[in-house]
Amino acid sequence: MIDHDVNVLVVSAHAADFVWRAGGTIAKYVKNGANVSLVILSYGVRGESNDLWNIAGQTVENVKNVRREEIEQACKHLGVTDVEIWDFADYHMQITPERMERLTKKIREVKPHHIISHGPRDAFNPDHETVSKYVFEASVLSTSNGVRIDGYPAAKQARLFGFEPHQSEISDFKPDVIIDITEVYEQKEGAMNCFKAQQHLIDYYGAKAKLRGNHARRCSGNNQYKYAEAFSRFFPYVGGELV
Amino acid sequence: MIDHDVNVLVVSAHAADFVWRAGGTIAKYVKNGANVSLVILSYGVRGESNDLWNIAGQTVENVKNVRREEIEQACKHLGVTDVEIWDFADYHMQITPERMERLTKKIREVKPHHIISHGPRDAFNPDHETVSKYVFEASVLSTSNGVRIDGYPAAKQARLFGFEPHQSEISDFKPDVIIDITEVYEQKEGAMNCFKAQQHLIDYYGAKAKLRGNHARRCSGNNQYKYAEAFSRFFPYVGGELV
Amino acid sequence: MIDHDVNVLVVSAHAADFVWRAGGTIAKYVKNGANVSLVILSYGVRGESNDLWNIAGQTVENVKNVRREEIEQACKHLGVTDVEIWDFADYHMQITPERMERLTKKIREVKPHHIISHGPRDAFNPDHETVSKYVFEASVLSTSNGVRIDGYPAAKQARLFGFEPHQSEISDFKPDVIIDITEVYEQKEGAMNCFKAQQHLIDYYGAKAKLRGNHARRCSGNNQYKYAEAFSRFFPYVGGELV
Amino acid sequence: MIDHDVNVLVVSAHAADFVWRAGGTIAKYVKNGANVSLVILSYGVRGESNDLWNIAGQTVENVKNVRREEIEQACKHLGVTDVEIWDFADYHMQITPERMERLTKKIREVKPHHIISHGPRDAFNPDHETVSKYVFEASVLSTSNGVRIDGYPAAKQARLFGFEPHQSEISDFKPDVIIDITEVYEQKEGAMNCFKAQQHLIDYYGAKAKLRGNHARRCSGNNQYKYAEAFSRFFPYVGGELV
Amino acid sequence: MIDHDVNVLVVSAHAADFVWRAGGTIAKYVKNGANVSLVILSYGVRGESNDLWNIAGQTVENVKNVRREEIEQACKHLGVTDVEIWDFADYHMQITPERMERLTKKIREVKPHHIISHGPRDAFNPDHETVSKYVFEASVLSTSNGVRIDGYPAAKQARLFGFEPHQSEISDFKPDVIIDITEVYEQKEGAMNCFKAQQHLIDYYGAKAKLRGNHARRCSGNNQYKYAEAFSRFFPYVGGELV
Amino acid sequence: MIDHDVNVLVVSAHAADFVWRAGGTIAKYVKNGANVSLVILSYGVRGESNDLWNIAGQTVENVKNVRREEIEQACKHLGVTDVEIWDFADYHMQITPERMERLTKKIREVKPHHIISHGPRDAFNPDHETVSKYVFEASVLSTSNGVRIDGYPAAKQARLFGFEPHQSEISDFKPDVIIDITEVYEQKEGAMNCFKAQQHLIDYYGAKAKLRGNHARRCSGNNQYKYAEAFSRFFPYVGGELV
Repeated sequence: MIDHDVNVLVVSAHAADFVWRAGGTIAKYVKNGANVSLVILSYGVRGESNDLWNIAGQTVENVKNVRREEIEQACKHLGVTDVEIWDFADYHMQITPERMERLTKKIREVKPHHIISHGPRDAFNPDHETVSKYVFEASVLSTSNGVRIDGYPAAKQARLFGFEPHQSEISDFKPDVIIDITEVYEQKEGAMNCFKAQQHLIDYYGAKAKLRGNHARRCSGNNQYKYAEAFSRFFPYVGGELV
Repeated sequence: MIDHDVNVLVVSAHAADFVWRAGGTIAKYVKNGANVSLVILSYGVRGESNDLWNIAGQTVENVKNVRREEIEQACKHLGVTDVEIWDFADYHMQITPERMERLTKKIREVKPHHIISHGPRDAFNPDHETVSKYVFEASVLSTSNGVRIDGYPAAKQARLFGFEPHQSEISDFKPDVIIDITEVYEQKEGAMNCFKAQQHLIDYYGAKAKLRGNHARRCSGNNQYKYAEAFSRFFPYVGGELV
Repeated sequence: MIDHDVNVLVVSAHAADFVWRAGGTIAKYVKNGANVSLVILSYGVRGESNDLWNIAGQTVENVKNVRREEIEQACKHLGVTDVEIWDFADYHMQITPERMERLTKKIREVKPHHIISHGPRDAFNPDHETVSKYVFEASVLSTSNGVRIDGYPAAKQARLFGFEPHQSEISDFKPDVIIDITEVYEQKEGAMNCFKAQQHLIDYYGAKAKLRGNHARRCSGNNQYKYAEAFSRFFPYVGGELV
Repeated sequence: MIDHDVNVLVVSAHAADFVWRAGGTIAKYVKNGANVSLVILSYGVRGESNDLWNIAGQTVENVKNVRREEIEQACKHLGVTDVEIWDFADYHMQITPERMERLTKKIREVKPHHIISHGPRDAFNPDHETVSKYVFEASVLSTSNGVRIDGYPAAKQARLFGFEPHQSEISDFKPDVIIDITEVYEQKEGAMNCFKAQQHLIDYYGAKAKLRGNHARRCSGNNQYKYAEAFSRFFPYVGGELV
Repeated sequence: MIDHDVNVLVVSAHAADFVWRAGGTIAKYVKNGANVSLVILSYGVRGESNDLWNIAGQTVENVKNVRREEIEQACKHLGVTDVEIWDFADYHMQITPERMERLTKKIREVKPHHIISHGPRDAFNPDHETVSKYVFEASVLSTSNGVRIDGYPAAKQARLFGFEPHQSEISDFKPDVIIDITEVYEQKEGAMNCFKAQQHLIDYYGAKAKLRGNHARRCSGNNQYKYAEAFSRFFPYVGGELV
Repeated sequence: MIDHDVNVLVVSAHAADFVWRAGGTIAKYVKNGANVSLVILSYGVRGESNDLWNIAGQTVENVKNVRREEIEQACKHLGVTDVEIWDFADYHMQITPERMERLTKKIREVKPHHIISHGPRDAFNPDHETVSKYVFEASVLSTSNGVRIDGYPAAKQARLFGFEPHQSEISDFKPDVIIDITEVYEQKEGAMNCFKAQQHLIDYYGAKAKLRGNHARRCSGNNQYKYAEAFSRFFPYVGGELV
């Protein structure tokens, strides 16, 4: 059972990454009363808005507006209310020392038990790899007493989970943790449908959820699992019992 | 919290493998009321009784007697009462179709939620690699309806966990699961001390438990963890929440 | 363009493996006039007929009859006429020297340019791993002049391709070759539907074909690709141009 | 058969990389009427001109002049006429956003079907690793509609091939594609001999071409292959038939 | 036997890294008359001085003073006299072209046969990974004739050895070289005890030295080995005999 | 300097493997007074005598005679006098318990410091992989006191080195140890020329020796190295100094 005292921080490189890859898990945590904070680093203007740029006269500001509205609608479906959009430029995202400190501070503020973000490899998406390193390093800094940020004392090391990348095998992705999202799948579908221009991704991640559901059944013998999401771990599980 | 309805099956290639590598975890499950079944495949006469063979006039029968007594004492320390010794020859252990069926039947009888045995690679110990494959394949057979064993219907797929091998890095071992054994560490020490002739291993696995405790603290930020044991997973965790 | 002089040998461990994993590619080669020979090593009585064994009074002979009929129907959909079923016992399949020679002879007879069979790793399916090694080793023997089989002189080394295993990532599968099967996808669907008892697999491999179609479009920029199948290679491509 | 409508872009980190590692393949494409464009990013003044710096009074300008002349001669042997030298500083090469845009634009201009450049790892040569990442990321940017460059609309994703690095095994190189260069080997030899000061490399890549020829024969059974070049792939082959 | 003409350069990212990970090997080389030069890149103020920052009113200057004194004492125990502290900021360390040239010059000055520094991967410690790349690349630059530094001609390629990282398995560490440090272990213990505030690390690396001693005995059959340190290699051993 | 008290055991799967892959190293050890014992497991009748079987009327006995004579001549060139041919059948070699005991006994008799044999992977050559496992496991058995062989007490663990396989990269070969064979290269050439029917291998391994010489120079800065042979290690180097 998900504990309602659990803090979860989700860091999404572009506008919709958190929906395709962790929408079900997010909805489930929210539904069970956990505290979910979402940081979206960029609108994905350059790298993940292909369809919008097919419209004549398109502008950066307008693309941002469209994406912002989609994000807001998707968050409603998932039940997430604590959302920040940091509006970094994308393709290729640059991490400065200031940005590193900003995320370190955010982690110390949220005190997440779990951080969900991009895993270390993502073929065809260098931004995702940059963000993976960024989030991991900020999580390490957040635990170090010598990294002094006024009003934000050092935090405990959060557990880190990596999204499944788009092309899992050529991104060296291994599913370490497969989360059953059957009870909230409709919410994920609702959120995905907010990104209408990307119908091929809605199809794709719908099919993925079923495949991962099949794997969940095979690995567990539990036939209740219909839809699932897969994540990688950044370091071993530590705890009191075999899981 | 460990559930007292949990069934655990431990399969140990030689007499003492289960003590060095999982003694703490076993003691903890027993202490919490779980059902722990232990199968020891061989006495380790040829490959893991070096010291006994330094005694003039040593015989195979006598080595077995010594090891059996040590096993019994160690099990007392850990609280394990359901123990079978299958007395296979070791170095090199051979897996026949009959032996495969025997273990398949045992799994269907125990209906384990967790199986703990050797992981796929163990440098300098070919028997451990043989047993790893043996246990995994029997667990797969145990789930197949077409593998007919009278009176033993197909079981659900058990989770499989691999012991940490002696030389972890050159055996490609990655710790996937680190179990805190602080509350039962004295029991593990007691069990290890039953194998007096192998003082160098008692020292070795005492040091290991501390190192893994250090890693447990670093990965979790929980400073209560003093001693720990590490295991690999054979396939992904599947469940309802991030762990 | 597929050359109509091409010889293809497909080796399937169990009754339906060739349909789920290569049905589209097979249909495409047949449609283009290539010579496709199919060897099915077993009926999958023990390991891959779970549903049939739920029927009271089921017998081995009856399971074989059901599977044989399904195979025949599926082959009709794909257009394959040169089919042999070798009726090995499954779970676990054993490779004897006689069986090695039999396949070596078959390869020398067919003289395949391409062999399609199981890849080296398949989590949860030890038979598939056995067959992968079996096929590869027979292909090596088939090229050796010193392996004397009366009437069957040594063959040229065939190219080997590995099926995508069921759980690709935990089977270390990398797609090396992705084949567009859009033009024959209906035939594959027809063939899959011959295995009615395994509806979950029909769903699964339908979803897979779409996912691989998505990857095919991303890697090539060719939006005609709707459905695809992925394969691994056993050794490098050799030829006259970059492919 | 190589199609004369094929566009190939070769990106070489230093003056002679394209000759040692892809000279035969380049010559073959030119000979068959393909359009080959070559970008040489640096003269290799600091890192790959050891011998020239043994001459007393040597200057940067003079090293560049020598290398430029060698490049011109080598290109004549290979038949390449579309050559640009971007004159970046080497050891260590730095990739700025401007340089990223410049290459993205070049890719959109050339519209290559194939890009040949450095693979991801090259022990002892950090510049080659930098360039590998640079070329791959520019190829991704080139396909994105949101990366606006006036007059250069988004391109299709090109296939990427990696040169064989100097010390293949400790650079984790796997040959994915081995190209027969027998018919143009003399041209490659001619081009290599333009870099007289590096006799040890002429010997080395001569021997390599023979070794790869041996592998080509073993993998294909085609004994016409005498000389060959090996490349890695950046992502799977996608197409209509098994290759 | 260690040759007294051997030059060794040790590069430590933070104040105490060289003690925990190579203190025994350093002491042994000094004792045998080799020339050992030590460069400490930073005091580890931000990332490796947690305990000091628990003291109210702590300042950066004071942390540096404490660490400097500890370094001096530790060096006395190990016998190292040629020590430089470069005082880079840590967490995260930045490598500029000036810093690259500075280390290149240092290597040309010391002319090391062996360089000991951080290996390529260190989970939870991004600085160590940065330094690994820094040291390797400077060693490559140091051999290149075209990298002109007045008064410092090109050096021979040094052998590079990587420290064992703190969590070896999740840092992909393989021990390639295990050095017996039994004869100097007391000196290492003395040096470790200079870092009193880090008692948990003193315990940890004491246990490690025993574990590696156990591995040294198993791999060699030499029971004299009690304590040992493990290192990775950056590239193959080259020499006149099997070692 | 090679010590004349060193014992070396070479185990070759087929007739000529030891020449192509370790002929130089063997000659060097013999020349320096070491004790070199050679065990050749098979004549390679089926798998490695292609050319001989092109002769009409060829018989197994005759092939063995030809190969025996070639072995004798090659050994003369290398200076090896302690040679045994065990005449196992090849393609595919089978290891029985009796054969395991025979090699274990041989190791206890020779008491090798170094064993040189096939490494764990060799694409296109399953026998080589079988022998690798065979030799490693026998070396482990040889150290175990409980493996009782009358008159042959347990031995110390020998260091194991793996030959470079024919296609190194697709066999996952990493060169761990590169041995300079310049001073004995003529002897290796002489030995290779005893296998006249395999001219393509004489060319191949001549080219290989030069390539490895090039790598030896690059890794060491020692320009005396002209010819070299590469080996993998089975486990870490253990000793008193960095090598």
